[in-house]
Amino acid sequence: MTSNDPQRSTRHDLDPHLQRYAARAVGMTASEVRALFAVASRPEVVSLAGGMPNLAALPLDSLSAEVAQIIATEGLTALQYGSAHGVPKLREQICDVMALEGVTGHPDDIVITVGSQMALDLVTRIFCDPGDVVLAEGPSYVGALGTFASYEADVVHVAMDEHGLVPDALRAALAAVERAGKRAKFLYTIPNFQNPAGVTMAVDRRAEIVEICARHRVLVVEDNPYGLLGFDGQIYPALRSMDADNVVYLGSFSKTFASGLRVGWALAPHAVREKLVLAAESAALCAPTLNQMVVSRYLATHDWKSQIKSFQEMYRERRDAMLGALEQHMPPGCTWTRPDGGFFVWLTVPEGIDTKAMQPRAVTERVAYVPGTGFYADGFGSRQMRLSFCYPTPERIREGVRRLAAVLSEELQLVDTFGPAAPRSSHGPLTPAPDTE
Amino acid sequence: MTSNDPQRSTRHDLDPHLQRYAARAVGMTASEVRALFAVASRPEVVSLAGGMPNLAALPLDSLSAEVAQIIATEGLTALQYGSAHGVPKLREQICDVMALEGVTGHPDDIVITVGSQMALDLVTRIFCDPGDVVLAEGPSYVGALGTFASYEADVVHVAMDEHGLVPDALRAALAAVERAGKRAKFLYTIPNFQNPAGVTMAVDRRAEIVEICARHRVLVVEDNPYGLLGFDGQIYPALRSMDADNVVYLGSFSKTFASGLRVGWALAPHAVREKLVLAAESAALCAPTLNQMVVSRYLATHDWKSQIKSFQEMYRERRDAMLGALEQHMPPGCTWTRPDGGFFVWLTVPEGIDTKAMQPRAVTERVAYVPGTGFYADGFGSRQMRLSFCYPTPERIREGVRRLAAVLSEELQLVDTFGPAAPRSSHGPLTPAPDTE
Repeated sequence: MTSNDPQRSTRHDLDPHLQRYAARAVGMTASEVRALFAVASRPEVVSLAGGMPNLAALPLDSLSAEVAQIIATEGLTALQYGSAHGVPKLREQICDVMALEGVTGHPDDIVITVGSQMALDLVTRIFCDPGDVVLAEGPSYVGALGTFASYEADVVHVAMDEHGLVPDALRAALAAVERAGKRAKFLYTIPNFQNPAGVTMAVDRRAEIVEICARHRVLVVEDNPYGLLGFDGQIYPALRSMDADNVVYLGSFSKTFASGLRVGWALAPHAVREKLVLAAESAALCAPTLNQMVVSRYLATHDWKSQIKSFQEMYRERRDAMLGALEQHMPPGCTWTRPDGGFFVWLTVPEGIDTKAMQPRAVTERVAYVPGTGFYADGFGSRQMRLSFCYPTPERIREGVRRLAAVLSEELQLVDTFGPAAPRSSHGPLTPAPDTE
Repeated sequence: MTSNDPQRSTRHDLDPHLQRYAARAVGMTASEVRALFAVASRPEVVSLAGGMPNLAALPLDSLSAEVAQIIATEGLTALQYGSAHGVPKLREQICDVMALEGVTGHPDDIVITVGSQMALDLVTRIFCDPGDVVLAEGPSYVGALGTFASYEADVVHVAMDEHGLVPDALRAALAAVERAGKRAKFLYTIPNFQNPAGVTMAVDRRAEIVEICARHRVLVVEDNPYGLLGFDGQIYPALRSMDADNVVYLGSFSKTFASGLRVGWALAPHAVREKLVLAAESAALCAPTLNQMVVSRYLATHDWKSQIKSFQEMYRERRDAMLGALEQHMPPGCTWTRPDGGFFVWLTVPEGIDTKAMQPRAVTERVAYVPGTGFYADGFGSRQMRLSFCYPTPERIREGVRRLAAVLSEELQLVDTFGPAAPRSSHGPLTPAPDTE
């Protein structure tokens, strides 16, 4: 303190608090991409960027009546603090939901969180010291990368192919981390309909990956928001069903019911769950009681499985629209994944094109996507982008892909004529909120 | 990794993850006091321990109708993700609420959080590296101490008297921190009807304290959940109204409306607010949209100022019941604070009594309180306890104080006869959740 110069430089006066922040906050800067997102949300732009679920199929009238009844008859509970552990009835119901994926968990080992994002934050909080390694698929969910960065963990990406995370790549990554004398704390994986890649971990790989992690004494954090959104109704066994002692399962009602309620959960080995509850208390005291009761009532009184089926059908139609349009319009040299569920297609463009540099032009042409670099902690992904088919109508999706293909074709002509373009501007890192914008 | 012995000791097998936790999580252990709280929640026990607001005065029927209407007519927004910044309309309304305390803030400089607990967590996240110092009143809010511990910040307590934080004690604490070569990041203060002490910072001290902090380049974090709950309708000027550049103001609807909605906020200097939004995204993506809309609608359509007035009257009646009963029943040598608002009385017992050691006996005698040590980071407080008058009826409060006085009298006789008792058992630290239990 005494060594601080009270006369700060003019440069620092832009943010007079600049010298006070924690190390973890230094890199937290609002990205220019954010401004672009604002433009991309204009109605004339087809946004293939967001990860917002489409809620149009929800039964708003009956929900409205149910919530009214909760407040009128149980309002003193619904509007009051609850425990950081979560509403007991809902924890029991969550066990029924997870049973669909072969998970046998005890309600006591669940902690309810403000979306599964908070569960991920709490898991990282209790496991990661600065410099600890988190293994994650490359590419991985941008919001998870933001959380890992905020705890100063180092992300080591592990390769995927069309069958998901590659076991040999995991072995190699673990060996490299160990050789470097670093400590891998957990593998973060989205096994089903991965965000952003759209691929699913093959069933026979699951046991192998769980076994590798157990042998290396590395926890598995299984993030599964899309698991019930398989377009053919297929449900894959959770990694948690294969190793209850070494897998923390993160679940969410954001994609199967209502994201704006922010109700998610973690199912964790008992000792870990205890620490998660204590961490949840210091993070937010408790998740909103009303929201937990609304989800609980919905699960009890609505045919939620049929509702999920109708979500599957809606998203399948949109996936079909996107894949058909990609097939029809994309210039040669582009490749993309073919998801069997979830929200996302991962597109790779020909060499010479930088998807982040191209983004302003795409927005000018009234189509938006998320550039691939945001999904890597290490600068990869400049030839990739994430395309979401969850929110726009099939017609809009087709129109968006048509516009995107036109931008790409034009860009390719420029590359052919003048060589690869330099990035247009320094957009900075993509900050972790694409799924809410 | 390779140096880890796969054959762990039997002791460690109690929690196989024991060697994996982050440094910040090592101290997170569930306290035995927690078990006691479970007992204390039995109906035959008068709990003077909790900090739950009394919601009985809320207009549940009209609220129920309003919420139903929000879902029926704006459900697709209310149930959808929002921005981490918060609902714009609500941020404007919050400015009107804060204006009552002389605060002139811009809606853009507010970030809406999952209760003000999350705002405190995020502020600590962006400012505190391990070993950084946070100054806080002694005693201070147990939930804040838990948050500071979870970021491995060192708490230095600053003395209070009946007029709140003592400026000279603050100067001395800052000098000592600087002499020790440590870095104080912020002063955490609850200026109004402090939790747990029940005292209020004198108005003439406020400007002085703000000035001291600015001169030492230490941020002020002003936590103000009870500011509008003055029993004579008195409202004190916020510290934020005296220095917009160096004060982060934390507000909450938990005590003036409904705690179970978990809607709080931070008003921060612009650059800090930007980092808070990014931190909020990585912590939970966004606060629940529905809950923000419910609060916004409530502020727009209900006479919320009259509602607060009725809360004031209810709590004043309970405060009077508690002070009267203390006067009537407490044995000689006990002293206590006389709050003009808020929820809490801070009781000091005669030497020789350890309030934590006495607690099981009190619960046996069907009265519960929170021992004072939980409100200090440094082991002080063994002769203190926090008594809450917010939740039980006046009759129950009087009965609870009568029981407590009987336990204390008996304990004092034992002390007179046999000398001070050794603590009965090692209860461990009080974990940070008294206000929700």
